Amino acid sequence: MDNFIFQNTTRLIFGKGMIAELPKQIPAGKRVLVTFGGGSVKKNGVYDQVITNLKGYEITEFWGIEPNPAIETLRKAIALGKEKNVDYVLAVGGGSVIDGSKLITAGLLYEGDAWDLVKKGYSANTIPLGTILTLPATGSEMNNGAVISRYETQEKYAFFSNFPQFSILAPETTFTLPDFQISCGLADSFVHVMEQYMTFPAQSRVMDRWAEGLLSTLVEIAPKIKEDKKNYDLMADFMLTATMALNDFISMGVTTDWATHMIGHELTALHGITHGQTLAIVLPGTLRVLKDQKKEKLVQYGERVWGITIGNMSERADLAIRKTEDFFHNLGLATRLSDVNVGEDTIKEIERRFNERKVAYGEKNNVNGTLAAEILRACL
Amino acid sequence: MDNFIFQNTTRLIFGKGMIAELPKQIPAGKRVLVTFGGGSVKKNGVYDQVITNLKGYEITEFWGIEPNPAIETLRKAIALGKEKNVDYVLAVGGGSVIDGSKLITAGLLYEGDAWDLVKKGYSANTIPLGTILTLPATGSEMNNGAVISRYETQEKYAFFSNFPQFSILAPETTFTLPDFQISCGLADSFVHVMEQYMTFPAQSRVMDRWAEGLLSTLVEIAPKIKEDKKNYDLMADFMLTATMALNDFISMGVTTDWATHMIGHELTALHGITHGQTLAIVLPGTLRVLKDQKKEKLVQYGERVWGITIGNMSERADLAIRKTEDFFHNLGLATRLSDVNVGEDTIKEIERRFNERKVAYGEKNNVNGTLAAEILRACL
Repeated sequence: MDNFIFQNTTRLIFGKGMIAELPKQIPAGKRVLVTFGGGSVKKNGVYDQVITNLKGYEITEFWGIEPNPAIETLRKAIALGKEKNVDYVLAVGGGSVIDGSKLITAGLLYEGDAWDLVKKGYSANTIPLGTILTLPATGSEMNNGAVISRYETQEKYAFFSNFPQFSILAPETTFTLPDFQISCGLADSFVHVMEQYMTFPAQSRVMDRWAEGLLSTLVEIAPKIKEDKKNYDLMADFMLTATMALNDFISMGVTTDWATHMIGHELTALHGITHGQTLAIVLPGTLRVLKDQKKEKLVQYGERVWGITIGNMSERADLAIRKTEDFFHNLGLATRLSDVNVGEDTIKEIERRFNERKVAYGEKNNVNGTLAAEILRACL
Repeated sequence: MDNFIFQNTTRLIFGKGMIAELPKQIPAGKRVLVTFGGGSVKKNGVYDQVITNLKGYEITEFWGIEPNPAIETLRKAIALGKEKNVDYVLAVGGGSVIDGSKLITAGLLYEGDAWDLVKKGYSANTIPLGTILTLPATGSEMNNGAVISRYETQEKYAFFSNFPQFSILAPETTFTLPDFQISCGLADSFVHVMEQYMTFPAQSRVMDRWAEGLLSTLVEIAPKIKEDKKNYDLMADFMLTATMALNDFISMGVTTDWATHMIGHELTALHGITHGQTLAIVLPGTLRVLKDQKKEKLVQYGERVWGITIGNMSERADLAIRKTEDFFHNLGLATRLSDVNVGEDTIKEIERRFNERKVAYGEKNNVNGTLAAEILRACL
């Protein structure tokens, strides 16, 4: 096991009706900027609950943080927050609203353009953030990361700041989610675990078991959710699993990968494809191309998550990859670039970008432009 | 899944040589009370590393916090700390030193006798605590609980305060532990998980998977540690698993039990039997007596942790209980009261105490004096 320092300070407030905890979480007298996405919270009753529970606070609403939150939008939120002199941000929505709000909490204390902070990749100087999650997927509600896009240059980068002080997860708020968003959330959670797990065995037995426990849970609940997406216990397990998939709990002392995410981000930046959908396409390709490098872990994964116990190592690894692609396919997601009309031009552009930036990702830092292109061709 | 609020703020600092992180963790200028147990840290080099890394701080040493830390001892530490006007406590040792130090951090800010706080069961008013763990077992390094004894009255109670600000876990500090302490630590960790898991199924799939992951890890590493207790990776997995077994990570939204612990505490209070050893005796008895109540979960546990897939429900539950007792037995621990010379007199006294206190423990609050006596008789 590698040395590590772990700390996750977010207070997780989970369950039925827990939005009512709001007044206990935000200190009295705060001037709160409440951030939203496109308006689904007005249809599912979350907005009304938030407003009811924020009585007595001075609040300013900011609407319109889009999927893959854009600096162009966030600059407006920061300007509004500065004008209103806010000292707390409450993000109400999915991972994009929360990600965007993380940059807002930093941008409010920064004199220059907040894109500087994104390029720097980090700012610890923030006002406090609380969240109310409505879409299980990104884990942003219990980590310190965010991904911010810039539309004018088709760029998309990771940005790290502080952990939310609290996050309220009320599973019944997910009951009205469209099927496609649920599927993308399940895929996103699955790939988050895989990025921290699918490297090489024998680093930490306990971290492996936990990662496999999250994967097994997603494999178990995904078909059930398809049948019954208003089942509280199912959605509660989905919501909790999605949070645990990216809150540092399963990455203690182990090597991580993230090559699939870095390639997926480019597909979103270039074509606006939903994040979870890009991952469902890229992960199987990553595994096909890096099969030999990851063979031992693929076999362990195949056995413990998919029950694959026969065949030689190579056959078992192949079957584990096939099961993974089938899992995404059964969610109703595309698993090939051709399904989303992406071809060689995009592959060449991503190769060019990786080469230009001189980057190489993955557990071995070997996924450079050339290998990324090879992975993408394996997804055609 | 039940509603829950989760927060664990402890910074976990894990790995080789991590005691050197100490000066980054305790603010400069603090007057530190450093608490120790019986002196093993002078033999294994930990003491020297602590002193080296505390250069520049004003430190006061307190030695002699015993296994099952006693109010009689802790009062002296509190008096010394008040005299020296300390404003930070650093606990160096196993769970007993850390537990005792939790009461010290509260007692230092309390005017009266610290036993009042134990009887109250809770104090949030403490000075900060950091820990250096040398014995994986209790999880005290990453939770807010403690168990404090009073020898003159043979009492032993749980006490809750704040989480340690940081805990340093350096697995190499465990290389010199006696076999019996390692076995008790493995048993303690195992039973901590069981207390939060062995109730009824279908509360949370993901919490079940995580608990089973910890149990499976302990089952896998225990025989290996017997052969090779200076293996860094093995002891690292043991140390991390022991911490994760009791830091609230696996109890989100699920019903817990703790009857085995409450009975075990009485055996320690009356006979001084090591905590982990009492659990290895009581847990199989609890499972035998409550087999029908816990049958469904016993079958799930048998299948996922022990690979038991044949037989009817009752047979599978029986085999799972037998495997559990065998696990403790293979650790070299006693699994029967007769092995530790405890008999009917003690059983009657524990029954009397439970009745006198009008208590009833367990997932269904049905383990009262009568049922506790029945469980203990099943351990003879």
